[in-house]
Parts: sequence; C-alpha cells; structure tokens
Amino acid sequence: MSVTFRAAVLHELNQPLSIETVEAPALAAGQVLVKLAYSGVCHSQVMEARGGRGPDRYLPHMLGHEGSGVVVEIGEGVAKVRPGDRVILGWIKGAGADAQGIRYKGRNGYINAGAVTTFNEYAVVAENRVTPLPPGVPMDVAALFGCALPVGAGIVINIAKPPPGSTLAVFGLGGIGLSALMACKLFSCKQLIAVDVEPAKLEMARELGATAVIDASRSNPVEEIRALTGGLGVDFAIESAGLTRVIEQAFDATRRFGGLCVFASHPKSDEKIALDPFELICGKRILGTWGGDSRPGHDIELLAGLYRDGKLPLASMFTRRYALTEINAALDDLEHRRSVRPLIEIDPTLG
Amino acid sequence: MSVTFRAAVLHELNQPLSIETVEAPALAAGQVLVKLAYSGVCHSQVMEARGGRGPDRYLPHMLGHEGSGVVVEIGEGVAKVRPGDRVILGWIKGAGADAQGIRYKGRNGYINAGAVTTFNEYAVVAENRVTPLPPGVPMDVAALFGCALPVGAGIVINIAKPPPGSTLAVFGLGGIGLSALMACKLFSCKQLIAVDVEPAKLEMARELGATAVIDASRSNPVEEIRALTGGLGVDFAIESAGLTRVIEQAFDATRRFGGLCVFASHPKSDEKIALDPFELICGKRILGTWGGDSRPGHDIELLAGLYRDGKLPLASMFTRRYALTEINAALDDLEHRRSVRPLIEIDPTLG
Ligand SMILES: [Zn+2]
Ligand SMILES: [Zn+2]
Repeated sequence: MSVTFRAAVLHELNQPLSIETVEAPALAAGQVLVKLAYSGVCHSQVMEARGGRGPDRYLPHMLGHEGSGVVVEIGEGVAKVRPGDRVILGWIKGAGADAQGIRYKGRNGYINAGAVTTFNEYAVVAENRVTPLPPGVPMDVAALFGCALPVGAGIVINIAKPPPGSTLAVFGLGGIGLSALMACKLFSCKQLIAVDVEPAKLEMARELGATAVIDASRSNPVEEIRALTGGLGVDFAIESAGLTRVIEQAFDATRRFGGLCVFASHPKSDEKIALDPFELICGKRILGTWGGDSRPGHDIELLAGLYRDGKLPLASMFTRRYALTEINAALDDLEHRRSVRPLIEIDPTLG
Repeated sequence: MSVTFRAAVLHELNQPLSIETVEAPALAAGQVLVKLAYSGVCHSQVMEARGGRGPDRYLPHMLGHEGSGVVVEIGEGVAKVRPGDRVILGWIKGAGADAQGIRYKGRNGYINAGAVTTFNEYAVVAENRVTPLPPGVPMDVAALFGCALPVGAGIVINIAKPPPGSTLAVFGLGGIGLSALMACKLFSCKQLIAVDVEPAKLEMARELGATAVIDASRSNPVEEIRALTGGLGVDFAIESAGLTRVIEQAFDATRRFGGLCVFASHPKSDEKIALDPFELICGKRILGTWGGDSRPGHDIELLAGLYRDGKLPLASMFTRRYALTEINAALDDLEHRRSVRPLIEIDPTLG
C-alpha cells in the first residue's frame, strides 16, 4: 500500500517548516502506519527547528513527538496494535520493536524521520512508540499522552513521590509544568507554588489548585519561595521552563538536607548550569529526567484512569488550535509563550 | 579541674596559626575533656585558615576535626565515655549531647572553638563528637577515623555501594581519596582508576590495588577514563581533590544512564560547578556528601573490623609526621601536596 500525504518538513535551521507532499516507504518489520488525528507541539520542536540542538545532520527531516491517530497498516511481527486501533504516538520507548531508519520520499529526494513524527497526516512509526489508546480519553487529549503528560506527571509520580505534607514548586507552566501541577494535586501537599512569567498561565495554575503563584517577571521567585517556606525552600522543585537560568533558580529554591530539584528542560546545547557545590554537600539533590521515568505501557493506563476520574483537566491546555498548515504559527506562538500547548488538528474526523 | 595547655590559634585569615597557652573552661553538661594523642590535618583546615570559606566571624578560634586521645573528665550527663577511655574525635555527629558553645581563655581574651578541635593538647568536646576507640586500632591510625576514613570509605560503602563488576574512578588521592580507594577494593570492581597530579600518590594508589592510574598534570583524565572504559565513562566517580574543576572532570568521566558522581570536596565559597544539563537528562547523577553518610557509632565499629583484618592499610598515608609546634608546616605541606595526610603527634606517649 502506497500512501501519499502532506507533511511539515524542516529543510534548514531557523527557516519555517514547509508543508509538502511526501510518500511513505513500505513498512519494514516492526513498523506501524498511522493516520494522525492530532499532534501536540513541544518545546523540543522549537529547539530543533531553531538550531538549539546544534548542527543538524539529518536535514531535511520531519518533526513532532506526541500525537494520536488510527492504525492503518502494520509491518511484519507487530503484535501490539492492529489496523483500526486508536493509538497514542509518543517518543518514550515502550514495548515492541525499535524499528528505526524511516525515510520518506519527497519531491527532491529523501526526507529523514525519527522513530515517530507527528507533524504529518500519516506516519510510519516504530512499534515501541505507539500505545493503544485506553477507553474514555478523547483523541485531542490523547496527544498529550505522548510527551507532556507522562513527562510532567511522571516526574511527580515516578520520581518525586512527595510524602503527605510536602512543599512543592513548579517552574514553567507549559504542557509539562501543568501536567506536573495536576499530578502534584493527587498528593496531599502542604504547599504547591507555581512560577511563570505569564499572568494567564498563573491564573490557570491557581484554578488547578496552586496554593501560591509567582510572576517571575515581577519578583525574584527564589526569594518569594523562601519567604513562603519559612526560609527553607521547597521539598521538591520541578522545572520545565527550558532555560538554564530557571533550572538554577529551581535548584536555589530547593531546601537543603533532602530537598530534590528535578528538571525536564533540555536547554540549548551549549549552555551549562552553575551550581554551588556546598548546596549539594548540604544534601540538596538535582536530577535531570528523560521522560519522567515513564514506562508507557504501565503509565498510560494509570494516567488514563486518572483522566477518566476527572483528576487531569488536560483540555484546559489547548488555548489555541491550529491546522497542520499553520504549524509555523504554532511553533512561533509556543516560542513566544502565546500558546500553552499548541494542538494541531490534523484529522479531527478520526476523533 | 582547671587545665592550661598549648593550642594552635587562628587570629587572622591568611596568617600562620600561633601556638599559645590557653585555659579550658569548666565542663558544661554533655561535654568531655580529652587529652589529645594525635591529630590529622584535612583540606578543610587549609580552607578555613586561608579564607576559603569567606569572612570568619569566629576569630580568634581553634582548629582541627579529626584526632585521638584519652578522656580526662566528663561533664554532667555524659554516658558514652568515661575518664581513661581511649577515644576518636571527629566532626561527624554521633550519639550523645550536641553540647556546643566552647570558649577557651587566652592571654588577651576568649578563643572560640567548635564542638571539636584537635590542634591542641587538650580539648573540650561535645559528647556527640567522641567515639570510644575499638580495640586493635593504634592511636595514630585512630585519628583518621575522625574524618578521612569515614568520609572516604563512607562514600563507597554507604552511598555508591558498587555492584560487582563496576568501574570506578577516584579523583584526588589525599586522606579521603585513599580511604575511598581502599574501600573500593572491598568490592569486586572491574576497574579502579586513580587520578592525581603527584606521581608518588599515584604509585601509592597502584600499590593499594588501582588497576590504572592517571597523572592529570600530563594528560586529560576525562579522555583517559573514556579510553579505558570503551568510551562510556565509569559507573562511579568519586572526587576529593577540593577543586570545582575536578568535580566537573569527575562528572564528565561518569557514564550516562545510571552513572553516579559523588564529591566530598568543599571548594572555595565563591566557586560554582558548571554542568551540562543534557548529561543529567541522560541519567548521569551527581551528589555532594556531608561526611559520607556515616553514622559514627555504626561505621567506626565496621571500619575498625576491616582495619583489624588488614583491609585498610591506613598508616601508609602518614608520609610526614609533625609536632604540634610544626602545625603551620603541616598546613603548608598539605596545601602544596607535599604530604598525603599530615599527622600531628601531640602526645604519642598516650598511644
Ligand atoms: Zn516533548
Ligand atoms: Zn576533614
């Protein structure tokens, strides 16, 4: 079966993606052909498109790593899904074949793609990057199950595991940060402090149950957090703003003797974080995370159950919706914080 | 009982300590008067004397935080030791009263002291900083049980706990680094790499069982360690060189996806370490340590047993011995790496 469809292609760093017609390759063993319904847009794609990851030896290539859709065809050996299944597409590896090396045919040669891409009407995806969609989760919200939700909630549920009475702060209220905030509400926290520079996001955080919000464009969040916590800092600081400076702030706002700072940000590739070694000696800890320690097979079921119980009001993140042809506006809006988590409506009729 | 004795006193940062006669205060509840036999000298005292900890609001004060001696008198409520007991003095808190606020009388006013000091013939010590000396440990070696050994070995035994087949590197072969190296030999490591800039220390490390040694003054230790570990880096990097640059090297030499860098250094108070956040995202971990997570009551027994079994050839660290009157030479030699762990012989007749 040969499929021709539209895809957003990055030809050159710092240039808009171009929407063009490409042709999917025949499925190799362990691959799945999916028709996309929705895609989310994550800070990672902004970084990739803007050269924030350094030189890009895969150009031209396709992008996007969280989405939802319906399986059209499966390659040899695929057992996890079958045609007609509604699925989540995500970058975190789950069970199944890690069948990479996907190349589409474009007008002027081949276009590279990772094991999953979602800024396109169809995608050839490695079996280990699809997960059957649990019942009760709408297709638009399902896209967030590919990255924002498992990473943000995973930091809280899998890594922080805050004991009752803990104090927490979340820095950066994008898709990951808000997911983390929603997950924090599942625990009996004493304080839940939200930090951002956008009043609208801080308002959302308050509605989601933050006990205090800090506008970091108006005051020093480290000082504010110390003031809110009797000078100690928080037990857990979760950072997802994507900036080294904010990782440093989150670390500074963490309490000594057992406090933990977890960051999900992957900042520009030439930037480092500066830490005071004495703070580490005093038992302050810092961890990076690759996907919130999520195991998609397990965590997506868990998170879907929480969604069905009304504990994860995820649709509130979709402050703007875009057609696939508006992908550059979506990236721009995310970069300039005009959109919380852009939702790309690729084929809502599948939903 | 009033005791008058000689003590090394720091009056001014960056000036030599002066040996002078001081008078001990009457013991408060929870305090112990000890006659010192030996003291070790640790990088911390160099930092304190040289202003590496910033302004010093306790001047004039006494110094030293690892030693051995005999109990002369005990204050009210002290139950852990009694007069005549041979004891270890150390800075890591154990059981007993945390009876601080010790001031000696000097020629021209009071001289401050922490809960333990060891560059002096006698010391008033808080009960929680003394531990009865287990049998079979000579008094000179016992001094190392106050800091170097529990910190260095504690990093390995309490924090790293290297599984069989692990690869390890130790950066900085002073008292803590060599103690760590000896402790590593208790585990079935695949590789044990020692890094320093002094050929004599590297030779010691080889004799202690290092599988490879790297002279960091002649080659890049990070590149060398990568070459020795198939490009991966080590499972555990232990740093005790006291320099931010070396902490960064140790972190860089740690493997991704589960590797752990532990540093015992407390560098100058205005220096920060610069880390690539992507390495943390890739599951590389870094921890500072405050005393190797040691619990003196438990760990000193354990370490004494290992010493009696011949597993900890600690006396090899005493490459130079000094009288108390030579304390400034001892600090200079440690600062300029002419001595591995200076041993101050205060009253060897107690030994
Ligand atoms: Zn993402
Ligand atoms: Zn020390």
